[in-house]
Amino acid sequence: MRIAVLGVGLIGGSIGLAARERVADATVTGFDIAAGVAELALARGVLDHAASSPHEAVEGADACFVCAPVGALPELVGEALAAAPAGCVVTDVGSTKRSLAAALADERFVGGHPIAGAETDGVDHARPDLFDGAVWYLTPGESSSGLLYQRLHRLLLSFGARPVAIDAETHDRLLASVSHLPHVLANVLVSHAAGRLAAEDEVLPRVGPSFRDATRVAGANPAVWTDIYLANREAIAADLDDVIERLRSVGALLRDGDRAAIAAWTGAARDDRRRLLEADLVGGAVHELTTSVPNRPGIVAQVALALGKAGVNIVDMALAPAPDMRSGAITLWIAGDDAALRAERLIEDLGFPVGRAA
Amino acid sequence: MRIAVLGVGLIGGSIGLAARERVADATVTGFDIAAGVAELALARGVLDHAASSPHEAVEGADACFVCAPVGALPELVGEALAAAPAGCVVTDVGSTKRSLAAALADERFVGGHPIAGAETDGVDHARPDLFDGAVWYLTPGESSSGLLYQRLHRLLLSFGARPVAIDAETHDRLLASVSHLPHVLANVLVSHAAGRLAAEDEVLPRVGPSFRDATRVAGANPAVWTDIYLANREAIAADLDDVIERLRSVGALLRDGDRAAIAAWTGAARDDRRRLLEADLVGGAVHELTTSVPNRPGIVAQVALALGKAGVNIVDMALAPAPDMRSGAITLWIAGDDAALRAERLIEDLGFPVGRAA
Repeated sequence: MRIAVLGVGLIGGSIGLAARERVADATVTGFDIAAGVAELALARGVLDHAASSPHEAVEGADACFVCAPVGALPELVGEALAAAPAGCVVTDVGSTKRSLAAALADERFVGGHPIAGAETDGVDHARPDLFDGAVWYLTPGESSSGLLYQRLHRLLLSFGARPVAIDAETHDRLLASVSHLPHVLANVLVSHAAGRLAAEDEVLPRVGPSFRDATRVAGANPAVWTDIYLANREAIAADLDDVIERLRSVGALLRDGDRAAIAAWTGAARDDRRRLLEADLVGGAVHELTTSVPNRPGIVAQVALALGKAGVNIVDMALAPAPDMRSGAITLWIAGDDAALRAERLIEDLGFPVGRAA
Repeated sequence: MRIAVLGVGLIGGSIGLAARERVADATVTGFDIAAGVAELALARGVLDHAASSPHEAVEGADACFVCAPVGALPELVGEALAAAPAGCVVTDVGSTKRSLAAALADERFVGGHPIAGAETDGVDHARPDLFDGAVWYLTPGESSSGLLYQRLHRLLLSFGARPVAIDAETHDRLLASVSHLPHVLANVLVSHAAGRLAAEDEVLPRVGPSFRDATRVAGANPAVWTDIYLANREAIAADLDDVIERLRSVGALLRDGDRAAIAAWTGAARDDRRRLLEADLVGGAVHELTTSVPNRPGIVAQVALALGKAGVNIVDMALAPAPDMRSGAITLWIAGDDAALRAERLIEDLGFPVGRAA
């Protein structure tokens, strides 16, 4: 099977590696708009051939993956469709899907979005196993060819991914809620805090882990995110309307000072969070363990080693150093009742007290 | 010096330990409203004496620390002041300070709030070094005795803390922005997502690390947080007004679809975040390194050990497992140019590619 990859970064490169390692008789031809990137990918074994144009890359291809930033997709997908043979399935990996609606009129096009690997950029980070177990959304249009859809679906399965069909509208609304909106709120929170502190003419108090966690993605890669915000602006704006309504209600609750209503609201948030986390993770209920430790180098290692040795895997982890940087807390999220119990005992055996979120 | 501690949890217990270890001739008497807690603390060496009432605890005391949930403070501080001798300084450790305004009329009272140890509860987690390097806000009133303020200030210094005087109004406004507001937004975000998913009748897409980070504190200990929301409701509601205004502007930006304006907004958030992080941390500019690794047990340990051995301390860390739980990214925040450079090389030496946030 001949596979074309337009844009050889983290995702495109990982598609190349997965295809070369896992798809029988695959040959992968890549193009990248940045000079030298396709050649670098070739040298690293990510590609079989480096092409000097999209046209050259898709010549004779059976499948073409367009892996460009969201803003560049409409044009590049158009070029790919113009140059690709009649029997070639063309897909993309963009975080928003409605912006490619025009391409959906072509029977060869099926939109796609793998939920994987957004944290790092570049072909250097490409891995053949990047998509193992990852949901890979597919947004076929009404005119998409069934045969080509099936070919793409099987290809994704051989990459180790889990293809899930979804209509483009729903995809964009869901991603707005669980990905784009958190980024907007993080941005607003840091700018609010910066403005408030300037207004108070106050030194920043040592901000706690809640602020750091909530703002970790603030201002993430402005070039990439400007594209995403633009492409999904209606859905995000609708989410903002809903959030503004909710914040108004909270403001009213607070101004009323009704203890029972405030307690009910925060209790409901606790339930919602737990339900979302559990739905998100394989392996049963998620337990949150917090331990107090000295913050010297090596302590995280000690805890991680003890759990690793016992086969307990850490779903997520947050370190909250005390202001002196010499002590702090480690919060660990462990999936599965047994694993959490073992983790608790192992950490206590190391001499650190463990608390569980109720 | 005779020290009374009313409420022997994490904070009260750590005050007891710090006083017994670091204050010459200190004797610590503790009371806790929960049966058996003071006796447990006594058995663990946190206290010299367990008292059976606040009145008994403060008898003959030179300093009294009231360490109860915010909602219980007004009454317990009142009891302490009623029973304490004329020359006893009475303080509290609540996260909001204006709610104790009434007590401020007493010359013996100075409000306090150590920024330490909010992640874990209970006397089991108490440590003598909990306050090392921690900012400890003090909110003296107009009638606070200078002599008693000085005694408290020195006591906190000997605990290892950094006392900082601030008026109660400003304290509550600052904490609203950097602590209470992030909690409100996290709550709203999970409830919004839960509502949206229910409305779409959709399974949750694998939520990314941005959602998990943003909602980590959602629904945190509802009992404790209901008190805090109530006590600081005016400041939080004012912050909500500001955030709602900002969200409206973002909504308008998005609906206008003005790329330059959206890019400028997200770039400004990036700058704001960096400025806040750097102001918060000792040790120079913070560098954000991300590495792709297999997610098997022991990898975090391997990375942490390598950095620990080289004396590089990790300010903050986030693990982002891929959906298959077998691979993922580790993001590390390292303070100081040299330390970040060393960390980068060490991780590359382990065979993992490292990227830096631009």
